[in-house]
Amino acid sequence: MRLMEAIPNFSEGRRPEVVDRIAAAFRRPDVFLLDQEMDATHNRAVITAVGDPNALRQACLDACAVACELIDLTRHQGEHPRMGATDVIPFVPLAGTTSEDAVSVARQLAGEIWQRLAIPTYLYEDAAHDPNRRLLPAIRKGGFEALRDGAIREAGRLPDVGGPDVHPTAGVTAVGARKPLVAFNVNLATTDLELGKRIARAVRESSGGLPKVRAMAVDMRESGRVQVSMNLTDTDTTPIFQAYEFVAQAAAAEGVAVAESEVIGLVGLGALADVAKSALQVGAFSTGQVLENKLLAVLSEQTHEAS
Amino acid sequence: MRLMEAIPNFSEGRRPEVVDRIAAAFRRPDVFLLDQEMDATHNRAVITAVGDPNALRQACLDACAVACELIDLTRHQGEHPRMGATDVIPFVPLAGTTSEDAVSVARQLAGEIWQRLAIPTYLYEDAAHDPNRRLLPAIRKGGFEALRDGAIREAGRLPDVGGPDVHPTAGVTAVGARKPLVAFNVNLATTDLELGKRIARAVRESSGGLPKVRAMAVDMRESGRVQVSMNLTDTDTTPIFQAYEFVAQAAAAEGVAVAESEVIGLVGLGALADVAKSALQVGAFSTGQVLENKLLAVLSEQTHEAS
Repeated sequence: MRLMEAIPNFSEGRRPEVVDRIAAAFRRPDVFLLDQEMDATHNRAVITAVGDPNALRQACLDACAVACELIDLTRHQGEHPRMGATDVIPFVPLAGTTSEDAVSVARQLAGEIWQRLAIPTYLYEDAAHDPNRRLLPAIRKGGFEALRDGAIREAGRLPDVGGPDVHPTAGVTAVGARKPLVAFNVNLATTDLELGKRIARAVRESSGGLPKVRAMAVDMRESGRVQVSMNLTDTDTTPIFQAYEFVAQAAAAEGVAVAESEVIGLVGLGALADVAKSALQVGAFSTGQVLENKLLAVLSEQTHEAS
Repeated sequence: MRLMEAIPNFSEGRRPEVVDRIAAAFRRPDVFLLDQEMDATHNRAVITAVGDPNALRQACLDACAVACELIDLTRHQGEHPRMGATDVIPFVPLAGTTSEDAVSVARQLAGEIWQRLAIPTYLYEDAAHDPNRRLLPAIRKGGFEALRDGAIREAGRLPDVGGPDVHPTAGVTAVGARKPLVAFNVNLATTDLELGKRIARAVRESSGGLPKVRAMAVDMRESGRVQVSMNLTDTDTTPIFQAYEFVAQAAAAEGVAVAESEVIGLVGLGALADVAKSALQVGAFSTGQVLENKLLAVLSEQTHEAS
């Protein structure tokens, strides 16, 4: 079983029939559509799909073709900055695949999108050729309109594949690879927002804290708490439990306790098992020992044989 | 998705072709064979299968029929006490099923084994009608030979279904229901076996410790440790983390540290997620947030539709 995840974002959040047609591209052998969300305010849809890397890449390419046919960015409005009908496609390695595999899939797809659909593509995060393109905002600056109106030809902004002009209605697409991201919040039993800001600064990588941690403080007035809201972008480097302990100890040093924590959205079994390993001091533990994961391996094998 | 687990034990550990034929009964729609182990010394095989409760019950009945045909207890020797060709069949509730469901499946199967194969059956653990039959050793006392030679007709030893004599070659079978069991060991950085024994006594239910915990101390001479070896028979009542903290604190009170812990064999995702919830103080967390579990639900649905 070799599994990869893709979380493509499409610039359509108001016409469910369009999102359904895009999502249909992910109903194919060896690909599993896990989630499909649309947001009218941001006028944006997010698909979560898991599957065999090659099958998943082909599903993403088909979905791009549908989005290119049905979404016209010259007529698109919404709060979220965007640059393409298919805006971004991050790939994330799961069981049996590596970061290198995800980079390889992302780069191959970027070439195919240009060849098949004449949509120029940028490579970002781990798939970036240019270190200045690791972060999306640098690529996306000014959105579709700025790129269309000439920014795409400016120094350092030419697409990685194709171009030099945007697709007239579908814009450009960014394809990337990254580790699984865990959204993890620690709510402190205090209303002192400054304390929360100090701890967020201390824990986040950009100001010298723990590697692969982004953090900000959020005032949760309605519940009388201050939240240290974190994105853990590589839990192999900084596991969830380590981030928790850092924040809990920093708060305790100022006489403040943790009220509770939150894990937002999906989390991988590996990251969860790592918490248990740390908390219980378990030396050797494999996610293969988790009954549901063993069942998943058996089912996945059968599905593969049947398709 | 309604899932139950069965871990039937068969009195055959030396003829792989026989174990393979028994295991083949678990290759059917809606049933998934997770594991198949045989042990020549104990002359015993253990199958682990998961599936839809009704399909799993039928697979167990078919497996009993194969074992009845191919195993002759009058010619069976091995170190493990046993009373039947199919010795014991415990059912364990998993996702979407309850203890009551497992009891119901066990009792139905016990009736079917007698009706179809003329093998008398005992009901044990949660499925027991008689509180004296919760524990297997009381039912199994003296094994096949003692029951065959008259013990089966003694006061309090008549089978729950069928009888009053053993099946001439297949003996009797015990069918039960229990919660998932977690085998969890804490290895202490000491060679003081008496300390280990004191902690094992303190933590185990039978001497007034934590409910649903069995414990013993093991001298691990080769590694210079003493192990508190535990079976947690209901992690909803006493979660893994609580058992760990009890042992760690009891050891710390005598100046001894935990060297490491071990989780042996399979563990359910729910029990693992509970460790993370406790360790991180996570208020609301659902195993539905675990990516692999979400994928399992999707795959299981597809497999169900296909079969």
